[in-house]
Order: sequence, then C-alpha cells, then structure tokens
Amino acid sequence: MKQINIGILGCGVVGTGVAKLLLEKKDLLSSRTGAFLHLKRVADPDTQRDRDVHFDEGVLVPDAEQILEDPEIDIVVELIGGKGIAKEYTIRALEKGKHVVTANKALLSAHGNEIVKVARTAQVDLAFEASTGGCMPIIKTMRESLIANNIRSMSAILNGTCNYILTRISKHGDSFEKALKTAQEKGFAEAEPSLDIDGHDSSHKLAILNSLAHGIDINLDDIHVEGISCIKPIDIRFAANFGYDIKLLAISKSHGEQVEARVHPTMIPLSNPLAHVTGVMNAVAIDADETGPTMLYGHGAGMMPTASAVVSDIADIARNLIVSAKRRVPILGYPEDNIKKADILPMKDLYTRYYIRCAAVDNPGVLSKISGILGELGISIESVHQKGKNANDAVPVVMITHEAKEENVIRAIDRISALDSIPDKPVLIRIEDNNTQE
Amino acid sequence: MKQINIGILGCGVVGTGVAKLLLEKKDLLSSRTGAFLHLKRVADPDTQRDRDVHFDEGVLVPDAEQILEDPEIDIVVELIGGKGIAKEYTIRALEKGKHVVTANKALLSAHGNEIVKVARTAQVDLAFEASTGGCMPIIKTMRESLIANNIRSMSAILNGTCNYILTRISKHGDSFEKALKTAQEKGFAEAEPSLDIDGHDSSHKLAILNSLAHGIDINLDDIHVEGISCIKPIDIRFAANFGYDIKLLAISKSHGEQVEARVHPTMIPLSNPLAHVTGVMNAVAIDADETGPTMLYGHGAGMMPTASAVVSDIADIARNLIVSAKRRVPILGYPEDNIKKADILPMKDLYTRYYIRCAAVDNPGVLSKISGILGELGISIESVHQKGKNANDAVPVVMITHEAKEENVIRAIDRISALDSIPDKPVLIRIEDNNTQE
Repeated sequence: MKQINIGILGCGVVGTGVAKLLLEKKDLLSSRTGAFLHLKRVADPDTQRDRDVHFDEGVLVPDAEQILEDPEIDIVVELIGGKGIAKEYTIRALEKGKHVVTANKALLSAHGNEIVKVARTAQVDLAFEASTGGCMPIIKTMRESLIANNIRSMSAILNGTCNYILTRISKHGDSFEKALKTAQEKGFAEAEPSLDIDGHDSSHKLAILNSLAHGIDINLDDIHVEGISCIKPIDIRFAANFGYDIKLLAISKSHGEQVEARVHPTMIPLSNPLAHVTGVMNAVAIDADETGPTMLYGHGAGMMPTASAVVSDIADIARNLIVSAKRRVPILGYPEDNIKKADILPMKDLYTRYYIRCAAVDNPGVLSKISGILGELGISIESVHQKGKNANDAVPVVMITHEAKEENVIRAIDRISALDSIPDKPVLIRIEDNNTQE
Repeated sequence: MKQINIGILGCGVVGTGVAKLLLEKKDLLSSRTGAFLHLKRVADPDTQRDRDVHFDEGVLVPDAEQILEDPEIDIVVELIGGKGIAKEYTIRALEKGKHVVTANKALLSAHGNEIVKVARTAQVDLAFEASTGGCMPIIKTMRESLIANNIRSMSAILNGTCNYILTRISKHGDSFEKALKTAQEKGFAEAEPSLDIDGHDSSHKLAILNSLAHGIDINLDDIHVEGISCIKPIDIRFAANFGYDIKLLAISKSHGEQVEARVHPTMIPLSNPLAHVTGVMNAVAIDADETGPTMLYGHGAGMMPTASAVVSDIADIARNLIVSAKRRVPILGYPEDNIKKADILPMKDLYTRYYIRCAAVDNPGVLSKISGILGELGISIESVHQKGKNANDAVPVVMITHEAKEENVIRAIDRISALDSIPDKPVLIRIEDNNTQE
C-alpha cells in the first residue's frame, strides 16, 4: 500500500482534530483511499500542552523546518492561522513541491491570488475545503458538482457566532449584549468577538466563495461588510410580524460582468430555508441556472467538523497521488488562465427592499415629513407600522420600502436623521425575498 | 485540448437535457475541465420527435450499437431507464472498457452489485450522481467529503411527488386524492403514480445511499416500504398541534453491524430542518460522527437539475482521463474488497415512538380498553388526545407513545382493530425526534 507522508503546521484546536482523525481512524482512511495516510510530523512551538492525542516519539516537534525541509513529506497541512508566518510557510511548502491543505480563510481572502500563482508555478495542489463552511462540502460542490452551472446567486450563513446570537435574540428575546455573553459562556464566541460579530469572518469566506462561483479573482476589499451589533429584539419582533427573520447573510449575485458581494444583517421570509438555520449552524444557499435552488447545511466550525473537511482534502490529494495525478481540478474551479478580474457592483448601485425603523417623538407631522423625504428620493413605501401613542416618548415607526436604490436610501436616512423629531439614527435592514420553492 | 467522446443512450427528458448542456455549454465545460466534451452520438429509437436541441447530421441515431461498438467513445451515458435493455447495454459498455454514467436508480438498486463487479473487472468508472437526489451532490459527498466519518444516521426526502402532495395536504388542507390530482396537473406526478406514492422510488434511492453510507452491498429487498396514501389531513393537523409535520422519509441508522433501512410517512418536529423542505424539493440529512448534523437540499428531479448532475459525473471522468487516471474513487466509496454484506435490522425489532389514531365510537370504556392493550404489551403512552363528544359518531382518539418495539405495536394495533368500538384499522405513523441543533 502506498504511503503518503503528512506534516501538520500548527497544533491548536483544528490541528489536534486532524491529528486525531489521521491516527485514530487510520484503518478507515486506508480502507477508503487505498493509501496509508501517515502523519509523519506535527510542528507547534508548544510541544508540552496536553492535547488528548498520542503522538509517537519525534512526531510532535517545535520547529516547522522539520516539515518544510523534509523531502519525504508529500502534503503540508497549514493550521497556524492568520496572515503572518502562515503565509510564509504556505508559500515555502508550495515552492518545495508539496501539496498544501489549509483552513486559513484570512490568508486566502487576503493573499489567495498570490498563493494560487505559486501553487500553479510549482504544479502542486492547494485545497481549502475547511476554510469556508466548516464540514459542508461547499468548495467541492462549487469546483466539481456545479461545473455545468452559472451561479446566479448565493446567500450564506457563514458565521456560527452571529447565527447563535441572532437565534438567541429571536427565540429568547435576549438583548444583543446578553446573547453575546451567553455565546461566550458556551464557547461559541471568542472573548474578543469583533472578527465574528462585525461580519469580517463572513466576508473572508464570501471572498473565497465568490471567486469559485464566478471564476473571478479572490477579492476581499470591495465586499461591503456590516455586523450584527445594531440588531435589537424589537427589529426581530417586527420582522416576525411580517413573516420574516433576521440573519447575517453573505450575499453574492451575478449581473453579467458585475457581481454583488455584501455581508450584512438581512430580513428573509420564513419560507426561505435559511430562516430555519438556527444556533451555531451554517448554510449556503445557491441558485444556479441549471440546478435551481440548492442548499448545504452543517457545522461551520468546531474541532471535529473542521478536521473532517481538512481530512477530506488530504484524502482527495492522496487519491490523486495513488493514480499519479495532480492538479486534477483547478484550484479555483476555473483554470488560472480563465480567472477574470473581479468587478464588484458598488454598494450605492444596489437595488433591494429595505426595512427602516426610526424612533420618532410622536409628533403628528413626523410621518408626513418622512414620507416626503422618501418620496422626493423616489423611494416608494410598501407599508408603514407605528406602535404606541404616548405623546412624549419616542415610538417606533417602521417602514418597508419597495425596491429602491441604495444611494437614495442612504441619502434619505441622513435626511431623516436630521429631523428634530427623530432623536436617533434610523435602523436600516436590507430585505431579501426568495424564489418560492414550489 | 484533449477530446473526450461521449455517447448518450436514451434521449428522453434527461437525455435531452444532457445533450443540451454538452452542446450549449461546451465553452464553459471546456474551460473548466480543460477537455473538449464531444457529444459524438445519441441513440434513441425515436429520432423524429422535436427535442428543442440541434444535433449535427449523424449524431442522433436509432441504434445503440453505434455507441456500444464505437471504439472512439470514452464515456457512455445510460439514460434509458428501467431494468431491461438498460442493464444489458450498461454491462456491454463496461465490458467494452467504456466508463459509464447512469441516472438509473431502479437498475442500480436491483442489480448494482453485479454491475459494480463488471466495472471492476473491466477497470473502468461507474458514476451515478443523478440516480439519487437529482442535482444534490449526495453521492460525491458520501464517497469523498465524508471519508473520515462513520454515518450514524440518514433521513431523506427523496421523492418530490410525495413531498409535493404532503405539502399540499399540510398547507392547503387538501385530501390526498385532491393533492395527487393537483400534482398530476402540474406535471409533478405521473399519470400512473404508484412507483412514487407507494414509496418504491424512495426505497431504490435509499438502497444506493445505504450502501455508500455504511460500506455494504446495495440491498433493496430488506428495506421496509410504506407509501403516503393513508395520510389524511386530520393526521397532519394533529401533528401540527404537537409541533410536528409529516414527511415521507427514507431512514437509515447504524447499530454497529446492523443497519435500519425503512421508507414510511414520518412525524418530525418543526425544529428539524427537513420539516421545512416543501413542495417538490428534496433533502438528505446526515448525522455523521465527526461532522455532526449536515443536510443537502435541492431539486431531486426535473430535466436540467438531473442533467446537471449527469454532466458533473461526465466532467469528473473527463478530469480523470486528462491526467490519465481512472478508478480514482471506489464506485461505492469503499474498495470492493471491503464492501460488507448488508445486515438490515428486521422491522419487528425497531424501537421508536408512534402516533396512533383510531376512530372510536365514543364509548366511555374504549380508552380504557385501548390503554389496557397497550399496557399489556409494554407500550407506554406519552399523551392521549380525544376530540368531539357526539355519542354515536366515531371520534378520533390520538395517542403518542414513548419508545416502543415495533412488533409489540403491530400486535397492539391488531388487537385494537378487533375491538367493537373501533370501526376502522388505526392509523400508525412513526415519529423521529431529532438532535437539537443548538
């Protein structure tokens, strides 16, 4: 039986999970791949920590050089994370002719195009199923299963922390702060949660999916990103009244040459399967021209779900090596020659429907002023909802618009904010309606 | 650019869809695979019918021999369907050293083990993504993405006709007969719908998935199958009262050596994502030991969704041929040497919860008689619901049991049916509770 030698860089949570799988499931993996996936070395500066996995003498070493410089190592698994040393090691491994498996979305979304070029020059494989959507096989689905399709749109819940918090607000009426605290207590949110709740983790993943979906460069900079900290229980209650829920969605839509790419809290109808993705679960809904609507659903993070995806990449490369094949599937799904420059639709040119909530001091004229502003900017209102009547307190006024242009809506919000009877900046949530399923 | 020659056997709905994709998307497919996927020949006895696709002179022929005997053809796509001539042609194509792509679940579920052996002897690939779950990449997910996982359980909606009918009953209160008629009018049900509504189409697909999930022989005969024609609006209303919906599920669960395999109407809680799969949509929920719960969702049938899956198989084989690889992934996910004989748990040994509805002539003693029977057979009742009080009409009595053994429940139903105050055979629906997601 052919032996494939594997080196893991970084033995944190996911690295430990991958080591566990390679060691504890070696018979299953040999049986299914026909090769012995041999974990030759694991490099991590901390070799002393108890990891609940047994390494043979000499496997766990402090020094990455023992992987990068070992000519016997076929596959390097980069699980250090971040954009610093992880980038250097990834590029060195590729240049040494090693295939690389990584779960590093921050690295790929920032430097993916450069890394793809290095892999191409070195004629090796680069696999990254675990970078996006955890155990969901979204990268494989894009690169292989949807090969005959043009992707019309993609809407995805890609951050379990945010989805858990929004579920707490929606199902338990928690405030954002209380929901975040619960998430932290349960280990679903970091002590420093901003990468997740500000939407940036989702935008890293969207940059990767967007490239695969549309055959374009990986492009992070032009993605519009908003987080969830502005979402209040009252917004979720209003949404529920209209038959909607609020999710942090990563959205990509194709308009021929231009592509929408945005991450923000989004109102979606309960008839949309994404509305029923609760807690820490993730999902990617894709509307492609031949398949119509499809969805993948699963854990987007966590030790073993992520390790499962990393090992599926290792097995894929091993299956290549057994038949003496490599670079069987292009890294980004399209051959590098055919990757186009990303042309992202500027956010101001977006057309969609909007939910606008203002806290208005109940002045009989305020609604007429607001409608006046919206009317002047060509924004037509589908419905208005006003609750409570106390003369001195601010009462919420909620408006749902018909499809309108983003730059006009932003201008309207600025003008509404300037009204005397509107003490706080209005809350704006974009609405996505979905194709019905039946 | 390498040219891969393709022959399609059978140009019905799906065959036409595949031809359309290969012809109309040839640039996309060449760009993504790096090969020219050349539709060399299509064989169908009816060469005259208008198919809304343009074939060059000599491509559409009446005679399959022009594909089977053509040494230039690399990949044969079998889309004739059924177990007759399709079996003969599939085996001949494999024996001639051609790779075969098929969407034929009836053939694979009945003769798959024999066909896999022929492919193995001939050292060619056999791909069948479109046989199960339409455009959902469930076969690829099982064979490749879940490679490091043991599948604990699988619950799937695999028949769009049944799901459409149940959705009509659930959302519109239609009777089964009316819902079936609507499905037929919309083209979602055949004029002769029994293969679908009796559950046999789902069992064909479950036989295939079961084999991939557990590394066992394809086994259709031991799958317990019930259809949906017994489902009444009243059952769906009761289910809704308890926070459940009723779906036709194909269920597989692993108990070490033994595997459950059953297709029947099933009550599932609304917190289960499958409860929100409506209309003709299909979904497969998998609980694997490393990933935890996952789900794929999409169209399980239809011309272009199915053709999309067939073409993904063609592209997969083409990508193998370009790098001079074949049989890169074992046909059933496990090497043929490691496929175990299927050991299906006898239905009588199943333990689950049950919904039992009797129409009882409202005799004050009837409930005590029923509970007596259940008690004697060790079946404990979680709750009882009785509606209406007219002394002479039959009123529905609904019971939900705790987990009980199937053979005892069947015995209880027989004894309850024999009571004077129970005019009709009670309705029995199995309940599946799911692991919560949060």
